[in-house]
Amino acid sequence: VIAAGVEWVVDSYGCDPTVLRSQERLAALLAHVISELRLSTVAEPIWHVFADPGGITGLVLLSESHLTIHTFPETGFAALNYYSCRAAQTPWRWDTVLAESLGAARVKVRAVQRGE
Amino acid sequence: VIAAGVEWVVDSYGCDPTVLRSQERLAALLAHVISELRLSTVAEPIWHVFADPGGITGLVLLSESHLTIHTFPETGFAALNYYSCRAAQTPWRWDTVLAESLGAARVKVRAVQRGE
Repeated sequence: VIAAGVEWVVDSYGCDPTVLRSQERLAALLAHVISELRLSTVAEPIWHVFADPGGITGLVLLSESHLTIHTFPETGFAALNYYSCRAAQTPWRWDTVLAESLGAARVKVRAVQRGE
Repeated sequence: VIAAGVEWVVDSYGCDPTVLRSQERLAALLAHVISELRLSTVAEPIWHVFADPGGITGLVLLSESHLTIHTFPETGFAALNYYSCRAAQTPWRWDTVLAESLGAARVKVRAVQRGE
């Protein structure tokens, strides 16, 4: 048995396009997630703002594994991943947090086990 | 309908621990994947080598979305993600490539649709 943690795949619909185009707002969201889940960053996050009408990508290297976001302002969609190689994982209130930070109307969360 | 591409979740078992501890070898693997799949990097990759017996993490920001790897030398396990927001995706020969590059004995590939 190789337990390699859980990857949370979080799809966020109906978000505010203005927020999805703001690196500052997205960085604040990731900082909030990192703080609330008590994660540790071990390198500077990398960000890229794509040319209009593109969105923004942010990747954070964690001691736990990674946290990423990709935004699609043209469809109000944001794709987040949070992978933690820690064995035990409990669901988190992504829906509330993303409603508040991105204006998400609906959030779909899937847990993908890594290893077996 | 919001089509936000496919995320390939690739779990690689029975890998050579020496390779899993080599940033150089892992960087060569990701460069090979990027070349073969004709992807475009838009920022310098970020890497972190964890203290022994830890593994290595690499994150690559792509114009297509992201490519990541986390290695676990103590169990011979490597967790890769390749997310592309391009709509059409065909399965790729991860098993052959990871057998050659990491010495993987077995590779499990899952396709996770993003959006709907």
